[in-house]
Amino acid sequence: MEALERRIAQGRGDAPADLVLRGGRVFDLVAGEWIAGDVAVCGDMIVSVGARCDGEVILDVSDLVLVPGFIDAHLHIESSLITPLEFDRCVAPRGVTTAIWDPHEIANVLGAEGLAWALETSGRTLMDIRVMLSSCVPSTEMETSGARLDAEALAALADHPRALGLAEFMNYPGVIHRDPGCMAKLRAFAGRHIDGHAPMLTGRDLDAYLAAGVRTEHEATSAAEGAEKMRKGMRVFIREGSVSKDLHALAPLLTERTSPFMALCTDDRNPLDIAESGHLDHSIRTLIALGCPPLAVYRAASLSAAEAFGLKDRGLIAPGRRADIAALDSLESCRAQAVLCGGARADAAAFAARGTVAPVGRGSVKARRVSAEDFRWEGPARAPVIGVIPGKIITEHLIEDVETLAGDRRPDPSRDLMRIGVIERHGKGGGMACGLVRGFGMTRGAIASTVSHDHHNIAVVGADYADMAQAANRLGEIEGGFAVVAGGGVLAELALPVAGLMSLQPFEAVRAALVDLRRAAASLGVTLEEPFLQLAFLALPVIPHLKITDRGLVDVDRFALI
Amino acid sequence: MEALERRIAQGRGDAPADLVLRGGRVFDLVAGEWIAGDVAVCGDMIVSVGARCDGEVILDVSDLVLVPGFIDAHLHIESSLITPLEFDRCVAPRGVTTAIWDPHEIANVLGAEGLAWALETSGRTLMDIRVMLSSCVPSTEMETSGARLDAEALAALADHPRALGLAEFMNYPGVIHRDPGCMAKLRAFAGRHIDGHAPMLTGRDLDAYLAAGVRTEHEATSAAEGAEKMRKGMRVFIREGSVSKDLHALAPLLTERTSPFMALCTDDRNPLDIAESGHLDHSIRTLIALGCPPLAVYRAASLSAAEAFGLKDRGLIAPGRRADIAALDSLESCRAQAVLCGGARADAAAFAARGTVAPVGRGSVKARRVSAEDFRWEGPARAPVIGVIPGKIITEHLIEDVETLAGDRRPDPSRDLMRIGVIERHGKGGGMACGLVRGFGMTRGAIASTVSHDHHNIAVVGADYADMAQAANRLGEIEGGFAVVAGGGVLAELALPVAGLMSLQPFEAVRAALVDLRRAAASLGVTLEEPFLQLAFLALPVIPHLKITDRGLVDVDRFALI
Repeated sequence: MEALERRIAQGRGDAPADLVLRGGRVFDLVAGEWIAGDVAVCGDMIVSVGARCDGEVILDVSDLVLVPGFIDAHLHIESSLITPLEFDRCVAPRGVTTAIWDPHEIANVLGAEGLAWALETSGRTLMDIRVMLSSCVPSTEMETSGARLDAEALAALADHPRALGLAEFMNYPGVIHRDPGCMAKLRAFAGRHIDGHAPMLTGRDLDAYLAAGVRTEHEATSAAEGAEKMRKGMRVFIREGSVSKDLHALAPLLTERTSPFMALCTDDRNPLDIAESGHLDHSIRTLIALGCPPLAVYRAASLSAAEAFGLKDRGLIAPGRRADIAALDSLESCRAQAVLCGGARADAAAFAARGTVAPVGRGSVKARRVSAEDFRWEGPARAPVIGVIPGKIITEHLIEDVETLAGDRRPDPSRDLMRIGVIERHGKGGGMACGLVRGFGMTRGAIASTVSHDHHNIAVVGADYADMAQAANRLGEIEGGFAVVAGGGVLAELALPVAGLMSLQPFEAVRAALVDLRRAAASLGVTLEEPFLQLAFLALPVIPHLKITDRGLVDVDRFALI
Repeated sequence: MEALERRIAQGRGDAPADLVLRGGRVFDLVAGEWIAGDVAVCGDMIVSVGARCDGEVILDVSDLVLVPGFIDAHLHIESSLITPLEFDRCVAPRGVTTAIWDPHEIANVLGAEGLAWALETSGRTLMDIRVMLSSCVPSTEMETSGARLDAEALAALADHPRALGLAEFMNYPGVIHRDPGCMAKLRAFAGRHIDGHAPMLTGRDLDAYLAAGVRTEHEATSAAEGAEKMRKGMRVFIREGSVSKDLHALAPLLTERTSPFMALCTDDRNPLDIAESGHLDHSIRTLIALGCPPLAVYRAASLSAAEAFGLKDRGLIAPGRRADIAALDSLESCRAQAVLCGGARADAAAFAARGTVAPVGRGSVKARRVSAEDFRWEGPARAPVIGVIPGKIITEHLIEDVETLAGDRRPDPSRDLMRIGVIERHGKGGGMACGLVRGFGMTRGAIASTVSHDHHNIAVVGADYADMAQAANRLGEIEGGFAVVAGGGVLAELALPVAGLMSLQPFEAVRAALVDLRRAAASLGVTLEEPFLQLAFLALPVIPHLKITDRGLVDVDRFALI
């Protein structure tokens, strides 16, 4: 019998269901009421709710509450430092059954090849991963990325069955000033879903950005900002990542009234935070603890996100919807005891049965080897200095009088001034730029990373030029990743051989390596809680105020290289 | 400058807007708050809300409240008895800016040609008409319709830019019993919008219907029925037509909480009701008068319907949305003082500028001429009788002992028993069936109509066979419509030359003719308020309990000809 006939027959009870969840209570996101009775599943679809059903397999969910699987409305899986299949294994058991992935990081390294890999991989996970096509690669013309994606390249993928639209359009100045390249991309996706990224955009600039066709956004960091965006028709995603954390600021906005227009996302969240606090499950229990109505929170976590992206097949536990179900011990704790992804139990056997996907972007770190001398930064004593703000991705643009030695503006641990260098690593000339940064607190050694948004060149911060060179060169040897070096030795490292962004190891191993790296960095005197996360955003020239790329220091307020 | 650049420039205020609405207050359907300030429009799009804007044209809406234009989530324009262009002129000034049209009536007469005409015509109106492709033509195998539409014919139109999906799937028994023809249609539209029609379907039968992929519905006639359908993930449309009126029954369901899942529709509404009470504006003010929160009502009237159909470009007064705006004197009265349809003012000049659409289905009434003798109905004295229930489309299945004369079961005005005849009129053999009906109250003459759902053959009710024959034959002469005949003379008539369903006259003339017809029918003793509307549903064999087609009396409960 064909799938359609099977569903109808099992829905009606003319045949036993493939799977029946028995003993739980469904939290109905329409009326906010409890529905007792069985949930019957045929293949990947729910076919009956609330009646007594016969089933080939009975899953006992006694005393559990059933809610629709959660939807992460916007994230970069690369920021989890693991492959999509590992991400799946890490996060699906927490109840996340759909993820809307902007593979923006791998696209900056590999271009269309990265998008193609994302689209292929997204079809191999237990959870349903959908891809938004990265709109701004590279993020600016002041950096050397591994690839460029123009309107034509993006339009060629628009009809891919796993592509949902154009990902966060970060170049909002380009939109509101009608940059031709931006216009071409917007025109190519007219009528499709175009996601936004416009931190603090307000008033008529925001109106113009919306008039360009942008529908959704995750950059609101205050209730006032979120309220204006929602009132103007944007669906606002509440982000709780590893660096950007907006839950507390936006929780007051999430009411039953606004719940159809809000969703949840993580944007960038690493395995440490996922393991220690959770993923969307963490956002959900925190919002409820902050006083948001459970109905509003669970709508935002599933149904409203589904509606935002036109995914009409999910977001409710109801006949005809995808069997994406989280069985929780309670609404408040949001601890999943069992999870169905499209009817399949998210357990070890199912993860093992997924097969594998060949990695992409091996050997992507093509940087020349550098020496201590390369980290000299010549110039007058009065120098611009990047001021790190703990837990923020914006920086201060400081001016300091620094000590010079033979023309080189020296780092000075006593004043918390470290050398920072960014080395082009895509095999495009090997350019390099240096500067000074305050805020790491280190007194010796160096840390280096190939995760530096969005171009993902090698970024190094250190007190000692030789250690910096060793750290950078070590990343070339291990195909990218993180390294902590001091006194000529590697104290800790994590290889990220997939495009210099993602590990091939299980997430448990990545988590352990991150703990080691954090500890090793602390041993150098680093005072930042997450030094590699902070480092990752020092090279991102679309976030104020002073940043550095392989081309040089960027005054973001003037949007120009210094 | 291209449209996109113009919108952005006008949104930002770099150029004056094409049109500015000044002095009104916007009712924000997200937060339920009032927004003061200008609304700027560029072409067909809103580009700024709430700021002071310069404009080429300023429309003074002082003291008015602005709400998004209304969306009729399900209707058959044919039931308005006027062409789509006249419907537009009749209804858009009341604030209806989008109509989701199932051209089911014309499809039953003309088949794919009717659908093609609907798709073409829908692009020529000021309001935005979208077409749902008629799923059940003919409605059963117990009638002779003018055409058949199979899965292949429907699938061929699925990608038409004005087609939104598969229209109300009335053959719900065929769905839940897996009829192959139904399965083929559902498969052809898998993943697209499939609208439902399943009056009183409940429990696991409803589950099965939903598992087949049906998403929306307008047949709930009680709060309990609507609540179950919504809880099971259906979006429920509150219908207020000319015959089926569900506002009062469903009003208790419409709360702020459920408002994202409810919409409004008219289904079948004639020019008399539109002129006397209104269209969706009538539903809106009635719901508010019944105590529904205005926020919930206005959401249902626009935003929620837009979301139900994935029309992401409308439903809010916000930048980037279609400039579909109703300027009302108050939320409670819902009287539109000005209406914008896609940025165009719905006024006489705009209606005049639309041009014309050539009618289709001329000369569609191909019935043979009948004589008085044809209305004899032979059989025993004990006879089934159709019992009309005023204001309902269901009928009673009565059994009466009737007077016979030379074998003919005679009508008997003293017992309110009238002859009813249905004559095939599509040029497919000219079959005819007769029966008896109670409830019209007439004492002489005859009334006849080519609007008889869904096959639209000629239906005649009368006390006198000669008058009945004259009435039926007169419809052949005027290309279909309505006629009232008595004593050998035509007392009133309305020609409906477009497929025997729609007039070519302005709606004011149609309304006047309907008043005349009602008066003429009353002069025959007819006690029903809307005899032609009641007559129209006596031939519809998918509504219980006893109906009649050109093939004979239908026992709907047994789903068989008697």
